[in-house]
Amino acid sequence: MTIRDVAALAGVSVGTASRVLSGNSATSPAARERVRVAAEKLGYRPDARARALRSTRSHAVGLLVSDVRNPFFADIAHGAEQAALASSYVTLLANANEDTAQQDTYLEAFLTQRVDGIIVAPQGEGGGNLRAVERARTPLVFVDRTVDGFDVPSVTADNAQGIELAVAHLAALGHTRVGYIGGPSSVSTGRARHEAYLAAVARHGLDDDAELVTVGDFRSASGAAATAKLLAGRRPPTALLAADSLMAVGALGEVRRQGRRIGADVALVALDDIELFRELDPPLTVVAHDARALGERAMRLLLDVIDGRPAASQVLPMRLVVRESSTGRSGR
Amino acid sequence: MTIRDVAALAGVSVGTASRVLSGNSATSPAARERVRVAAEKLGYRPDARARALRSTRSHAVGLLVSDVRNPFFADIAHGAEQAALASSYVTLLANANEDTAQQDTYLEAFLTQRVDGIIVAPQGEGGGNLRAVERARTPLVFVDRTVDGFDVPSVTADNAQGIELAVAHLAALGHTRVGYIGGPSSVSTGRARHEAYLAAVARHGLDDDAELVTVGDFRSASGAAATAKLLAGRRPPTALLAADSLMAVGALGEVRRQGRRIGADVALVALDDIELFRELDPPLTVVAHDARALGERAMRLLLDVIDGRPAASQVLPMRLVVRESSTGRSGR
Repeated sequence: MTIRDVAALAGVSVGTASRVLSGNSATSPAARERVRVAAEKLGYRPDARARALRSTRSHAVGLLVSDVRNPFFADIAHGAEQAALASSYVTLLANANEDTAQQDTYLEAFLTQRVDGIIVAPQGEGGGNLRAVERARTPLVFVDRTVDGFDVPSVTADNAQGIELAVAHLAALGHTRVGYIGGPSSVSTGRARHEAYLAAVARHGLDDDAELVTVGDFRSASGAAATAKLLAGRRPPTALLAADSLMAVGALGEVRRQGRRIGADVALVALDDIELFRELDPPLTVVAHDARALGERAMRLLLDVIDGRPAASQVLPMRLVVRESSTGRSGR
Repeated sequence: MTIRDVAALAGVSVGTASRVLSGNSATSPAARERVRVAAEKLGYRPDARARALRSTRSHAVGLLVSDVRNPFFADIAHGAEQAALASSYVTLLANANEDTAQQDTYLEAFLTQRVDGIIVAPQGEGGGNLRAVERARTPLVFVDRTVDGFDVPSVTADNAQGIELAVAHLAALGHTRVGYIGGPSSVSTGRARHEAYLAAVARHGLDDDAELVTVGDFRSASGAAATAKLLAGRRPPTALLAADSLMAVGALGEVRRQGRRIGADVALVALDDIELFRELDPPLTVVAHDARALGERAMRLLLDVIDGRPAASQVLPMRLVVRESSTGRSGR
């Protein structure tokens, strides 16, 4: 389907059809009507890619999340997409699946689709096609995570403050042995949360032996494995702190399989809130991101970069939501 | 960044640079090396949209899901995307947010991005830009849901069989009053599951009064409201059947807020399985889709359509997974 087909059906020249379709007034009302009808009949639409080659704007932006099946990133995507639509941009989502090779594949795809800008929750130590995005001078913003060595504006959560809130809460309840289920050290949030846990444990004078620290990969199976390891220790922790929601899901299952009760037998606090956590029995204490706000702010920051406005990185606070998984009170 | 910049830096003509970059062998080794170094230095990449204007393939496909925050659609997206990558296609995801206007916006975006094909879990009664996709002759496949009046290959689940499995299970446990929390009648799965519920209730001789039937919108708040209405009836149901996972989450919360216990006081069966359901206390009985398989099959079907191979619609079976939310046995 090309403009030639439209012109042929309308019985006008390609030049006339082109002038009508581009809104040029140097055309007769009769020609305009014939071209309009022909274009409608044939389902012709101007090619955005061809227009973008001339106009430089596609009004599409790319958002690459780490794991589309993680509710935290789904909420970020929803917030970003709504903010984009409010400014007449569409958001093309892609899923890195916590994999740097797949991240590179989709960054390449975004560049070849000529998106106007890209938001990434990045994997890995940097390099790869993140450098290609930088070389192509495509506007780039990081969300949730950052990569060392990139001068890229970002919207992240205050991980140190969030972990401190969780540890202070557990310390105030009398826990001295807080088992930590951490994220991978290849991700900035994994590193920041681990450091924050060590600092908070020292600040509150809690036990700091190495067997209280485990490392997962932000997926639920790793949370279950870490919990099994922690509970099998010589002096098991009385409280667990999971560095993301999916690892907390794994911890919940492992505690149940061991015949113990969350809340009554072992306290659990999760980083990230998901809708189901408040419906659990007992409901789960969390340190909550506002994931939707992270997505909205990141998109507005990207649109600032695209439009050449000043763009400063932002760090959003986290919030402690106390429910019965840590206080042990029954909801019934 | 254009091929002119590459040619200038390499000190060759634009024609030579073009021949080198398109792999034409009628070039000298020295020119090839100079162009290669210049392109690398400048971060030049051929414009996929410009190539697509000539070659007709972008090797990108669009996938429009109903709600990216619904784990069922996130699993479909993951399955589809992995199947696409295996055939060297990238998947651009978009979120209709259970909204027909937003569906139209993203279908338009996919068409202007010149994707090679589109998979949709459709909203609404048809029309809108689904007709524009048809007119543009862009390959189209439906997943999970269909729209009447469209001759489009689809991969769906056997909703009638799934609902029958759930009702038969509850009937065998002695329940005669099964409260139904249904989806919207504007969605094919909402209609199909409601009809299947009525047929199964008749088949098993269960109570069929109208107050046992409620309608939600596939979001959790509507599941909570429907549950409140069902439990406030003159003769409340002894079992609940929720037509999707998010409405089941709402039902869980409402039952807990009313001080009753899932399993012991009221049975609950959900359509769709999500990871957290098996970790609940008690774990949730579900009729499970294989969401990942739905996504994989839909993508392979789309690639068949794109490549002109025969493409027949597929209906995948559902599977009953009995856990303690219906049998009332304690896991402890």
